[in-house]
Amino acid sequence: MIDRLIEEIKRKNAPVVVGLDPQMSFLPEQILAKYISEMGETLEAAAAAVYEYNTGLVDAVCDLVPAVKPQIAMYEQFGIPGLEAYKRTVDYCHEKGLIVIGDIKRGDIGSTSAAYAEGHLGTVTVVSTTISPFDEDIVTVNPYLGSDGVKPFVEVCRKCDKGIFVLVKTSNPSSGEFQDRLIDGKPLYEYVANAVNMWGGEVMHDSYSDVGAVVGATYPEMGVRLRALMPKAYILVPGYGAQGGTADDLRGFFNEDGLGAIVNSSRGIIAAYKNEKYAHFGAEGYAAAARAATEDMIADIRSVL
Amino acid sequence: MIDRLIEEIKRKNAPVVVGLDPQMSFLPEQILAKYISEMGETLEAAAAAVYEYNTGLVDAVCDLVPAVKPQIAMYEQFGIPGLEAYKRTVDYCHEKGLIVIGDIKRGDIGSTSAAYAEGHLGTVTVVSTTISPFDEDIVTVNPYLGSDGVKPFVEVCRKCDKGIFVLVKTSNPSSGEFQDRLIDGKPLYEYVANAVNMWGGEVMHDSYSDVGAVVGATYPEMGVRLRALMPKAYILVPGYGAQGGTADDLRGFFNEDGLGAIVNSSRGIIAAYKNEKYAHFGAEGYAAAARAATEDMIADIRSVL
Repeated sequence: MIDRLIEEIKRKNAPVVVGLDPQMSFLPEQILAKYISEMGETLEAAAAAVYEYNTGLVDAVCDLVPAVKPQIAMYEQFGIPGLEAYKRTVDYCHEKGLIVIGDIKRGDIGSTSAAYAEGHLGTVTVVSTTISPFDEDIVTVNPYLGSDGVKPFVEVCRKCDKGIFVLVKTSNPSSGEFQDRLIDGKPLYEYVANAVNMWGGEVMHDSYSDVGAVVGATYPEMGVRLRALMPKAYILVPGYGAQGGTADDLRGFFNEDGLGAIVNSSRGIIAAYKNEKYAHFGAEGYAAAARAATEDMIADIRSVL
Repeated sequence: MIDRLIEEIKRKNAPVVVGLDPQMSFLPEQILAKYISEMGETLEAAAAAVYEYNTGLVDAVCDLVPAVKPQIAMYEQFGIPGLEAYKRTVDYCHEKGLIVIGDIKRGDIGSTSAAYAEGHLGTVTVVSTTISPFDEDIVTVNPYLGSDGVKPFVEVCRKCDKGIFVLVKTSNPSSGEFQDRLIDGKPLYEYVANAVNMWGGEVMHDSYSDVGAVVGATYPEMGVRLRALMPKAYILVPGYGAQGGTADDLRGFFNEDGLGAIVNSSRGIIAAYKNEKYAHFGAEGYAAAARAATEDMIADIRSVL
């Protein structure tokens, strides 16, 4: 899978992923109002509005970026109808040729992690029929439970040509509470980084592994260190834009081959029409605003590579 | 919520939770066959079989135990139909008076964790209508992202009288890879335990907090230490039975008041009919086998209290 991601990043010359994290407050009023009037103030209406919003965004950016990253929590909050909208979004993005990174941050033990891995990346077998329930291309994984929790995902990556990004150093302010704790002089996240190398060794391709890492743009110095520690791991970098990371902060996340990182922006793109800079597009022009913001982000990142 | 859990534990004299983790291989053949013949080899058929299997189990044990713990991964593996079976299971358990502990191990940052918390424990608002999408009573939470990831859950606990169990020391063999790492002479899980105390202080009740902890029965010495470190946290103890934990191992997880821990068993109960001891019940008697195994487990645990 990582080779396909790299190929698409090169083809579009854009190491950028658009985060499809549809908060209620981002939904353009006209879309929500339409479904509320059809279906009432229901989860179904919210989910239908989310899906239509997403299709507008995807249509607007699909020729610019290699991948999208729907954050499943933002769908799961609307219960089953929300998760249906998530699945429909995954399928729609595939129709548009995009790689889908499911930001699911799952992680459990043994057969339970295997169930997540098979449900999201792989297949389940009902008697003799094989089905891909969610069918994302890559998902994010939480490492707190150790190898038992991660290896079932790696196994599915190998079997089904998929990928994972393991949380190493997250972008949020309190990520250091546990991740930065020093163990024999080295922070915990470096131990996780070493484990990423170990897990990734099982699914190596030409230059990179199907096992990548999440490292927040908000910690650029740690990014430099982690880049060096995990030379074969692609880094998914959240935290650019709304969370405070700048293009200058991103330089150190890339390898000398100009590859090795893909930068996510969510609200900075999907809610661009609410940002002063793009406000002239208005709520009706939310998708055009997202396209303009994506073009600006790509130019910004190219400027430091 | 913790007071209600304690009341039900006392009333039934059983600090025991039944894990509803329906692996495909546990499903009695007659149930699966019925839905396959009706609906074909589909996710819908698998999910319908899972739900019927669960209702049989719940009917058989609902007067014996205070709570059940559906593991969402085992439903999510069947995609949307599986998650519908999860939600229907939550509702069915509520009808039978059981407390539902959703084993979801979610954890993300800020507004994303809030979305999980509201979707599972709290409410979402669609314009002016308030809806409880999943409506579990308690969920498990992964702490790797620090306070940003956990506090949104605590906030919902306060607002909606719900509870969480934070992963502190998990029951799996590789849990020590990160959780046991020594930081200034103390393992990481003790730092997480201290954080559990801090988060739990916000939602204290008479003797216990709505913020509890997960500590595996497979690590009884750490259980003793963590019991002392977190006197106000209820401990959810997985790993009894199939994973190797014995009743003797459990003693140290309880406080002197005889409270403070609730022990989970999943496959040892729900797949009891596949165990030699209960095999005479047969697949048709899977629910009666589960009841017998639950009675035996309760007696086993009472013997050490």
